[in-house]
Amino acid sequence: MIDRLFTNARLADGSSAVIAIANGRIARIGDADPAEQARETIDLGGRVVLPGFVDGHIHLDKSFVGDRWRPHVPAATLRDRLAAEKAMLAEARPIAERASALIARAAGFGTVAMRSHVDVDATTGLSNLHAVMEAREQWRGRVAVELVAFPQAGILSAPGTADILDAAIREGADVIGGIDPSAMDGDADGHLDVVFGIAERHGVKVDIHLHEPGLDGIAQLDRIAERTRVLGLGGRVTISHAYALGDVAPDVVDRTAATLARAGVAIMTNAPGDRAFPPILRLRAAGVRVFSGNDNIRDAWWPYGNGDMLQRAMLIGYRSGFYTDAELGIALDMATHAGAEMIGLDDYGLAAGNPATFVAIQAENAAAAVAEVPASRIIVHQGEIFDAATAG
Amino acid sequence: MIDRLFTNARLADGSSAVIAIANGRIARIGDADPAEQARETIDLGGRVVLPGFVDGHIHLDKSFVGDRWRPHVPAATLRDRLAAEKAMLAEARPIAERASALIARAAGFGTVAMRSHVDVDATTGLSNLHAVMEAREQWRGRVAVELVAFPQAGILSAPGTADILDAAIREGADVIGGIDPSAMDGDADGHLDVVFGIAERHGVKVDIHLHEPGLDGIAQLDRIAERTRVLGLGGRVTISHAYALGDVAPDVVDRTAATLARAGVAIMTNAPGDRAFPPILRLRAAGVRVFSGNDNIRDAWWPYGNGDMLQRAMLIGYRSGFYTDAELGIALDMATHAGAEMIGLDDYGLAAGNPATFVAIQAENAAAAVAEVPASRIIVHQGEIFDAATAG
Repeated sequence: MIDRLFTNARLADGSSAVIAIANGRIARIGDADPAEQARETIDLGGRVVLPGFVDGHIHLDKSFVGDRWRPHVPAATLRDRLAAEKAMLAEARPIAERASALIARAAGFGTVAMRSHVDVDATTGLSNLHAVMEAREQWRGRVAVELVAFPQAGILSAPGTADILDAAIREGADVIGGIDPSAMDGDADGHLDVVFGIAERHGVKVDIHLHEPGLDGIAQLDRIAERTRVLGLGGRVTISHAYALGDVAPDVVDRTAATLARAGVAIMTNAPGDRAFPPILRLRAAGVRVFSGNDNIRDAWWPYGNGDMLQRAMLIGYRSGFYTDAELGIALDMATHAGAEMIGLDDYGLAAGNPATFVAIQAENAAAAVAEVPASRIIVHQGEIFDAATAG
Repeated sequence: MIDRLFTNARLADGSSAVIAIANGRIARIGDADPAEQARETIDLGGRVVLPGFVDGHIHLDKSFVGDRWRPHVPAATLRDRLAAEKAMLAEARPIAERASALIARAAGFGTVAMRSHVDVDATTGLSNLHAVMEAREQWRGRVAVELVAFPQAGILSAPGTADILDAAIREGADVIGGIDPSAMDGDADGHLDVVFGIAERHGVKVDIHLHEPGLDGIAQLDRIAERTRVLGLGGRVTISHAYALGDVAPDVVDRTAATLARAGVAIMTNAPGDRAFPPILRLRAAGVRVFSGNDNIRDAWWPYGNGDMLQRAMLIGYRSGFYTDAELGIALDMATHAGAEMIGLDDYGLAAGNPATFVAIQAENAAAAVAEVPASRIIVHQGEIFDAATAG
């Protein structure tokens, strides 16, 4: 027996469909069948149904969502920025509250999973990690949160960080992070020795922030790909941002893309507003997995972002010159399936047998949803309509 | 006597205020006064109030809003694009219906005025103009629509267009348009002779699309500024897009900006997603008026845009690296006051004596509204709450 029948839905291509739910899972998705009986029927009014969104890169410990508006403070150097951030966060509400508020906001837009970087260093210790783990616990079963132990201030240049990163993994972080091995620490191999050493010791994934520009950045991409290949970590390593791929000539992109694809290194981009970023189609054509995330959301780094991965998909497409339905579909894939694969979600996606977790959006098809970012959404979690305002 | 009192509003800076309405106008805006009596009180729940949005550049005759989704068709050349557009529009619902649907969409986001370019050429004749004028008539009193006679396919290269542009102005277009004087028509002075000739003859404003890149584009900017200066048209001439200003070195920007400021030529930018565009702060610092518009919205040119000028302000800021509250305020100014001045709206803005027309948005202040683009809005038109779903 079908518990609930969602009628008058549209699939990504705009075709009409119904979704039959049994025990919180999709029993059937496809053409309407007049013979199908259900305890309850919900008319989706022609909305397009998309799988829940996946935010592949967020900083849950940094955002002021859940706190008051805090005007951006300009900073001349990275050191000044980090100092300003520490001062602003010290005045803000506790991390666990803010992180939970941001997860709630994202869930209200239809996000079902995220990878959050969390600052871990010798002065912060594990306090941010513990706080974000508390928020993760509150949302367990609703939003899957994967945590990255992130050395925001570097590793070698912030003594004691290597040990605390190791401790972060032992305490439950799922991924070991890194940042600008050469520009931040002045010793790329030393930095990567720590990162990949922890990955090897604990069997965790790797996700390294790489802002280093041009050919310097390309050298890091090559270095990380080589480590990944040697250690057999293909499919478990991400380079976030990889701005360098937006700076260099097409032949360098292609050579580097081939290296990344062979090694199984993925690229995460948020399509920054005023900086060149990786050419997505070119990387995908070479076989590189590319996924996206909102990155910073209303924090000390910048004021933008609202937690909506559909807005992010639009920004990805807008910045990349994606105009066709197929291209808009790629922007959506980066906010759904590509991230889900990287995080390793089981049973993800709109298919019979999977949990009936999806977003119904007032749009004619998936491409239109990406281009327009409609606000009106019905969020369905395991077959139940989810009200973000009362959850969390 | 106060007809209606909007309480618990926030001004742009986040401070608390009430707005007292009498005869559809703002009788008072400022601190709450317990002695103030009103027939009716409406609690704005801490929403920030912004003046109605102004879309300074839209193409009401091109959009498929109000029609079905039409997938983007790639085109190798401008000629192919124009042919594809004609074919797609020929199948779509009538222009007047689509234009009205797009105005309705924009009004629902809080737009109160727009400048629409309308294709006018020897083959199209005045049919698009008449259709958009019909839509304008439907919205008169609600949304002010200024119309530009726009030679999308060039003037000299499309014989007969000069006469039909002149006729368009006689029939009610408010502004004479132009496009890429050199790249499109191969005769910049010939093109500008027609445009400025019509402006002089009829006393109308000028708004020229300029996509020509680099120093070629700069030469056109100089040429248009010189014509503006000689004819004394300062304050009545706009160059839309002016991509060239995003291509050239800072000293060339500064020299050109000084020329534009002296001549009184304004710049319109929509902050395109994948192309360099004018440096807004640098132009403003030189005294150039810079305003914005959504440009194409879900049409044959690209699939993006939804009619929301607050989303556009966010995109302007996102693309420009605007982070501080002051910078976010500039992005908002481009979507409100700067466009209102260019269109020449009377009594515009949140001040005593002006029509009580504003947008109340769920945000702590104006900067937060720009950064976050909240969907929840209360639109007030001349003191009355405006329901876009039932208007138009």
